[in-house]
Amino acid sequence: MTQYTRRLFIETISAGLGAAVSHPSFAARNDADQPPARKLNVALCGLGRYANVLRSGFAESRYCRLAGIVTGTPAKAAQWQQDYKLADRNVYSYQTFDQLKNNPDIDLVYITLPNGMHKEYTIRAAQAGKHVIVEKPMAFTVRDCQDMIDACQKAGVQLAVGYRLHYEPHHSELMRLGQQNIFGPVRLIDASLGYQLAGTPPNDWHLKKSLAGGGPLMNLGVYCVQSGRYVLGEEPLSVTAQYGPVTMPSLFKEVEENITWQLTFPGGAVCTSATTSNCNIDRFYAAADNGFFELNPALSYGPFKGRSSQGPFNFPVVNQQAALLDDIGRHILEKKPLPSHIAGIEGLKDMRVIEGIYRAADTGSKIILPQG
Amino acid sequence: MTQYTRRLFIETISAGLGAAVSHPSFAARNDADQPPARKLNVALCGLGRYANVLRSGFAESRYCRLAGIVTGTPAKAAQWQQDYKLADRNVYSYQTFDQLKNNPDIDLVYITLPNGMHKEYTIRAAQAGKHVIVEKPMAFTVRDCQDMIDACQKAGVQLAVGYRLHYEPHHSELMRLGQQNIFGPVRLIDASLGYQLAGTPPNDWHLKKSLAGGGPLMNLGVYCVQSGRYVLGEEPLSVTAQYGPVTMPSLFKEVEENITWQLTFPGGAVCTSATTSNCNIDRFYAAADNGFFELNPALSYGPFKGRSSQGPFNFPVVNQQAALLDDIGRHILEKKPLPSHIAGIEGLKDMRVIEGIYRAADTGSKIILPQG
Repeated sequence: MTQYTRRLFIETISAGLGAAVSHPSFAARNDADQPPARKLNVALCGLGRYANVLRSGFAESRYCRLAGIVTGTPAKAAQWQQDYKLADRNVYSYQTFDQLKNNPDIDLVYITLPNGMHKEYTIRAAQAGKHVIVEKPMAFTVRDCQDMIDACQKAGVQLAVGYRLHYEPHHSELMRLGQQNIFGPVRLIDASLGYQLAGTPPNDWHLKKSLAGGGPLMNLGVYCVQSGRYVLGEEPLSVTAQYGPVTMPSLFKEVEENITWQLTFPGGAVCTSATTSNCNIDRFYAAADNGFFELNPALSYGPFKGRSSQGPFNFPVVNQQAALLDDIGRHILEKKPLPSHIAGIEGLKDMRVIEGIYRAADTGSKIILPQG
Repeated sequence: MTQYTRRLFIETISAGLGAAVSHPSFAARNDADQPPARKLNVALCGLGRYANVLRSGFAESRYCRLAGIVTGTPAKAAQWQQDYKLADRNVYSYQTFDQLKNNPDIDLVYITLPNGMHKEYTIRAAQAGKHVIVEKPMAFTVRDCQDMIDACQKAGVQLAVGYRLHYEPHHSELMRLGQQNIFGPVRLIDASLGYQLAGTPPNDWHLKKSLAGGGPLMNLGVYCVQSGRYVLGEEPLSVTAQYGPVTMPSLFKEVEENITWQLTFPGGAVCTSATTSNCNIDRFYAAADNGFFELNPALSYGPFKGRSSQGPFNFPVVNQQAALLDDIGRHILEKKPLPSHIAGIEGLKDMRVIEGIYRAADTGSKIILPQG
């Protein structure tokens, strides 16, 4: 097990210790007066690290249940089938994936495959008539994101991106403080996330361009980009970016080891970020005209700790994965369109920025980002 | 009084409440076994904001005393002359400044004038045969810094720059943790400092290019540059930089309102910084292979608060100004050369980086910094 997965494993365990408390601002989203007539049946596609994180989410979800799996590893299939008492007909391999279209037991496919497989399996799931949740980063390019959105629309299914932090009360507070100008306009945001990957096996998919699409920017930086966008409630206008020195050349042959970037926003705010695989960092800070607010830890799985210039935050630990599953499950069961913050368009908007960051770092030039 | 000076005033008062405690690592510098036979006689040149901050430094200094003043404002002259019981012959105007050469009561001139006057008055003080402390930023260009160093050398006087944070125990700890690789090599530093200047009168010298030399980079960013250099114990190799949006165009007509930059260092570390006049920020964070260390507040007058991955720091509040005066005073009284961290060369090294930052921001290009 790499240091990376060990760390995340420990965080997952810790997060699991906190009960899935309903924060007042989340009640409207998650707690219907009555339990749903039935739960949404979810097939988990790709039984890697994040699939294991999702176990506690399913355990606490009121609207979704784990009803099927897709895996290429027989040992994993056996373990998960046993853990969740899955019928044989709900266990798929990548060869049999498309037969999902004949399975009424499955409503939605949750794709936790390596990034490079997100596009293909999203489109194949849509073509099988299943709703989709795809993990971040949604894909490698804006064009890919659009293809995925189009495929789901054509198939009449809904597409969600696994943006768990929209269901976390500290982050809801950041959004409120920023978007409502509680301390006046936000002027400067610093949002950074990194994990030390020294010791990772060189064949880990996170180090392969074809599977990861990039380095930490793809896997972690997307959270920094998200946070700037949702705290300001704006889309960035321009970006500059810089690759840092490669300190582990034996690992980082295909993807960046670390990268810094700076986004400007229409209201005059600047958002600076670093994401890296050579050290641990997990911080968010926003300075506004009349105060500040910050989280540290900020963007990982938590538990989070934060404060504003008026004092410490005091929000409960929630099960982000359960809350996300519940919101998506409820909307789909009620045949309502997903909120835009969790829909495919949100992943596409992040990808616009990420493409811009790579172009800026590759060219050394300021990149004007496409709008609208 | 502007918001800027109000804030600094409050900080000064607060800092004054802490006794000038001798931290063990500072004892060697500041506490000789016996008091000196006589104190070094200092003339303060420019009785603005920072001169008032220095009052508590002189009050607690064992090696320096305030023995004279240089001011263009008769009311200030009267007030300071009364406060410090100064003889008429030790009170100068800018017209009579050069007559200092005939005054054996003055050993050193401490220049707290606006930045744009640092070079001229350093050279004139040297020509009057006086040692010099000049506030940061030392000057506007590397060339100016070199001229100042040369003038002092030619005159046989010593030149110091007022780098107070070298005499502050939290910062000594940052240096120890970083330079000695206590948590392994440092990979990423974020050091940012800014003050909200909304409400500043448009004629404030900080807003004038001819007097300030630039915006917050000159006045505040120099601390960020310093901290990266002294925590790593290295000189940066290259820099990229970006001006942010101007949100107060009526104030920021001549100098930058805010700027972000990224330095790369020989050991592979990256140091990212923001300095701004449109919000308050005061943070330092360093991530190393096996841990982190941080201060928040970090670079202002304090009091500072910090921790490492091993727990919170517990250092006393020291009077930075008194400690700085004592170290400089002791060296000069003992006719020893000043340590390089406080000598003119240190100001020149910072100016190399600051010139590079402005060039990088002006050109949008990565700038390779001169070494050696």
